[in-house]
Amino acid sequence: MKQLRLSQLCQILVDHGFPATVEGEDRLIDAVNTLEAAKHGEISFLSNERYLSAVATTGASAVILRPGLPVPDGLAAIRCEEPYSALTVAIIAIHGYREHPQWGVSERAAIDPTASIGNRANIAAGVTIGANATVGDRCTIYPGCYIADGVRIGNDCIFYPNVVVYDHSEIGSRVTIHAGSVVGEDGLGYAPLGEKWIKIPQVGRAILHDDVEIGANCTIDRATLGTTEIGAGSKFGNVVVIGHGTKVGRDCIFVGVVGIAGSVKVGNHVTLAGHVGVAGHLTIGDNATVAAKSGVKNDVPADSVVLGYPAIPIAEFKRMVVVQKRLPELAKRVKELERELEELRGLVDTPSPQGAP
Amino acid sequence: MKQLRLSQLCQILVDHGFPATVEGEDRLIDAVNTLEAAKHGEISFLSNERYLSAVATTGASAVILRPGLPVPDGLAAIRCEEPYSALTVAIIAIHGYREHPQWGVSERAAIDPTASIGNRANIAAGVTIGANATVGDRCTIYPGCYIADGVRIGNDCIFYPNVVVYDHSEIGSRVTIHAGSVVGEDGLGYAPLGEKWIKIPQVGRAILHDDVEIGANCTIDRATLGTTEIGAGSKFGNVVVIGHGTKVGRDCIFVGVVGIAGSVKVGNHVTLAGHVGVAGHLTIGDNATVAAKSGVKNDVPADSVVLGYPAIPIAEFKRMVVVQKRLPELAKRVKELERELEELRGLVDTPSPQGAP
Amino acid sequence: MKQLRLSQLCQILVDHGFPATVEGEDRLIDAVNTLEAAKHGEISFLSNERYLSAVATTGASAVILRPGLPVPDGLAAIRCEEPYSALTVAIIAIHGYREHPQWGVSERAAIDPTASIGNRANIAAGVTIGANATVGDRCTIYPGCYIADGVRIGNDCIFYPNVVVYDHSEIGSRVTIHAGSVVGEDGLGYAPLGEKWIKIPQVGRAILHDDVEIGANCTIDRATLGTTEIGAGSKFGNVVVIGHGTKVGRDCIFVGVVGIAGSVKVGNHVTLAGHVGVAGHLTIGDNATVAAKSGVKNDVPADSVVLGYPAIPIAEFKRMVVVQKRLPELAKRVKELERELEELRGLVDTPSPQGAP
Repeated sequence: MKQLRLSQLCQILVDHGFPATVEGEDRLIDAVNTLEAAKHGEISFLSNERYLSAVATTGASAVILRPGLPVPDGLAAIRCEEPYSALTVAIIAIHGYREHPQWGVSERAAIDPTASIGNRANIAAGVTIGANATVGDRCTIYPGCYIADGVRIGNDCIFYPNVVVYDHSEIGSRVTIHAGSVVGEDGLGYAPLGEKWIKIPQVGRAILHDDVEIGANCTIDRATLGTTEIGAGSKFGNVVVIGHGTKVGRDCIFVGVVGIAGSVKVGNHVTLAGHVGVAGHLTIGDNATVAAKSGVKNDVPADSVVLGYPAIPIAEFKRMVVVQKRLPELAKRVKELERELEELRGLVDTPSPQGAP
Repeated sequence: MKQLRLSQLCQILVDHGFPATVEGEDRLIDAVNTLEAAKHGEISFLSNERYLSAVATTGASAVILRPGLPVPDGLAAIRCEEPYSALTVAIIAIHGYREHPQWGVSERAAIDPTASIGNRANIAAGVTIGANATVGDRCTIYPGCYIADGVRIGNDCIFYPNVVVYDHSEIGSRVTIHAGSVVGEDGLGYAPLGEKWIKIPQVGRAILHDDVEIGANCTIDRATLGTTEIGAGSKFGNVVVIGHGTKVGRDCIFVGVVGIAGSVKVGNHVTLAGHVGVAGHLTIGDNATVAAKSGVKNDVPADSVVLGYPAIPIAEFKRMVVVQKRLPELAKRVKELERELEELRGLVDTPSPQGAP
Repeated sequence: MKQLRLSQLCQILVDHGFPATVEGEDRLIDAVNTLEAAKHGEISFLSNERYLSAVATTGASAVILRPGLPVPDGLAAIRCEEPYSALTVAIIAIHGYREHPQWGVSERAAIDPTASIGNRANIAAGVTIGANATVGDRCTIYPGCYIADGVRIGNDCIFYPNVVVYDHSEIGSRVTIHAGSVVGEDGLGYAPLGEKWIKIPQVGRAILHDDVEIGANCTIDRATLGTTEIGAGSKFGNVVVIGHGTKVGRDCIFVGVVGIAGSVKVGNHVTLAGHVGVAGHLTIGDNATVAAKSGVKNDVPADSVVLGYPAIPIAEFKRMVVVQKRLPELAKRVKELERELEELRGLVDTPSPQGAP
């Protein structure tokens, strides 16, 4: 945590490409907080103007918001056209990223003599590192992690407690894996023999490329043959489950409880929202978005937004929801039509007196 | 485990506010069991009268059931108007709650010298407790748990093996967390920079209030700013996933595989059934119930029951399901109407001979 | 890994009941790989003829495929009518199953003196084994596993890192549990007292029968009373969640993120695909299949295939999807019918001049 004057913070924003100006007193700020929770000495922000009323009552000393929006007397402001991006810069400038306990290489870690450990590695008690594994420079490995034989880990990785990486998996540099996640476990690979299931040895590997971040309690299968891969820069929430042989592109975002079956090809910069499921052997194009809770059973074209079960394009889905809501009414109208048609048929079949010759 | 005579158990029920009487022999009971599995010396119960036939064949020595229901010769009974509540009291009286291994404060736990450990704390080998953390009186922490720097834990908590609590999280008193759950990990917080994702430091916290119980392999994000909170007395099943900044009220029940996105406000005494997903920034009112597998995309009013995807009120959903089932038939009827109307129009446009002048 | 000539591999296939012949040079093979990734000295396979073009470009030295399909010059082949089954045999023959690190019984495992450990057990540092627990012969228990008091484990089991087995659970022989899974934790068992929830002691047990394999980060509740059971030979993917008192038959396959509530009876050889949810107290018949993402709210008959929410037979579902897609059009047609009928009624009520007497 670092204390900054508003003017200093403003300069940092400008340096990051976000033009900004200070309004009011040039106060000292030592934390960023929500409008509701902020106290004296803290800065908050307004991104969604729906919450404008909270600016009037915040306990913050300053607020980041767009030019032109009203602020109460006594509240200093940083005016910026992109308050959400400015917020990110402010949090990094003031709070920085988490600092980790420094264990060096603990004597109570169980490191195989054939493993190779990088410079300034930070390896806790209760970590196991297997034969012929390599851990890069400046990696932090928390207690309870298990790095199996032959695993290769790049530089500057962070593994939170109880992460398990199965044998021969490959992890790039600057990869973060949160607590309890598992990488490279066997997938659900069995051959049927009558009603029994014969285990197929899972001899492929799992690869996480550079700058991947994996949430807590995720599981990423190794491939049966070949590789399961998570592309550079992709970010997963918690309890994301990736099947064997699936290849995920770069810069994807997968929200919590996403499950992908095996042998799926996911393009670059794809968003899968919470609880999405994707069936096996499908292809999801670049920049596609799948809305929360959807079940994907067909290929998804690049740049499209799909949802539902089975997932369909969003415009089609919305139309369907509207019509579905009107279904009971539609059924009534059909019944009424049948009644009226019957009545009309009676009129036509038995011509009215006026119509009679 | 404690042996009790039926008359003693009956008295305990009465003392707890459940009027009850013994029928038949005043037998010794040393366990509670299901009707199917119960053996000599055990007591069972009948709550749902659908299973009445199982009373006739049970191997139990006694059964708890409502007055008036038939029991076979030789089976003793406790008659009580609320057999399910009586069962709970009986299990507690005879079996009690789980007793934990007693480690004291193990010398093989890694406890930072600045951490504060309460009286009669029970901390296993292989536990890590970070700098400035506080653990209350009589807490039991199983092996493999990681309590990070600055975490505060109240009294009488139980953490089963491999629970991970990230830095500065706050846990109330009498909180139970089952194996493998993670509290206070970073949420999925990134700012877009072109197609790349810049990590936003997650500087908020996670708070679990008193008497919360969390199932196995759950994940509860810390907030980006401010707090994620789980209200007093709320109970979660397994693999429940809570997003950053979400606030859950008191006495809620969340069943397995529930996922809630960020910044959601859940009221008090809310039930979310299995596999329910809730989108971000929504409000769910007090006493609401969301049925299993539903996807909540809009606010849910207090005291309502919703289901489906998107979730809608139950009465509306049931009507829709009925109509949907009749859809193929409805489509046929519309086709038939079109045919008949066409025919009728023919009749009207070309008047029948009888109708001709 | 074992080097084999194609003729030797061919003989192994024949010995396993898969007639096969070598075509081309009798090469040495030392690995199995995908068509895309295979290199010199490796064998690949073609099962789905959709991928025939990949055979033309593979770097493999040999390929397993059906008789009659074309292979390019210089690629050796094993011809076999069942290439997928042949592949399984080939992987087992050449790669075998994972070999585990050999720890013996580590001095850094915490084993209660009353526990019984079988012959040639392989128990890592950082394992805890509780009072009166028994671990069978040749079991491998990885670091971070916790085996509670009174647990009974058969022979030849493999527990990957950080598996937790709660007290008095029972595990058969040849059971494999992947990293981070939890067996025998308390289910979500509470009795309501006003708006509060009183914990019901969960005094039942969890039983995994012989030859079960459980994926990573699964959770299998103990029963409130009696037993939760997973039948012999059943195989689970990752993050499968089984509720208290549920009984799963033998040889079932449950894909990732399946959740089953309490007191469900699942028959033998049942397939639950990814993200399936099953409500409490239901029965699923032998050989039934539930498609991915479905929500089961009613009993499922034996030998049936169901899907959707609520899950219905597949034929019915497909019909419904087709009709649903046509819903917007159907609504239009009803509107048109109403218009036309109105028009026609006008004609009939006010007879046209031609029709006038």
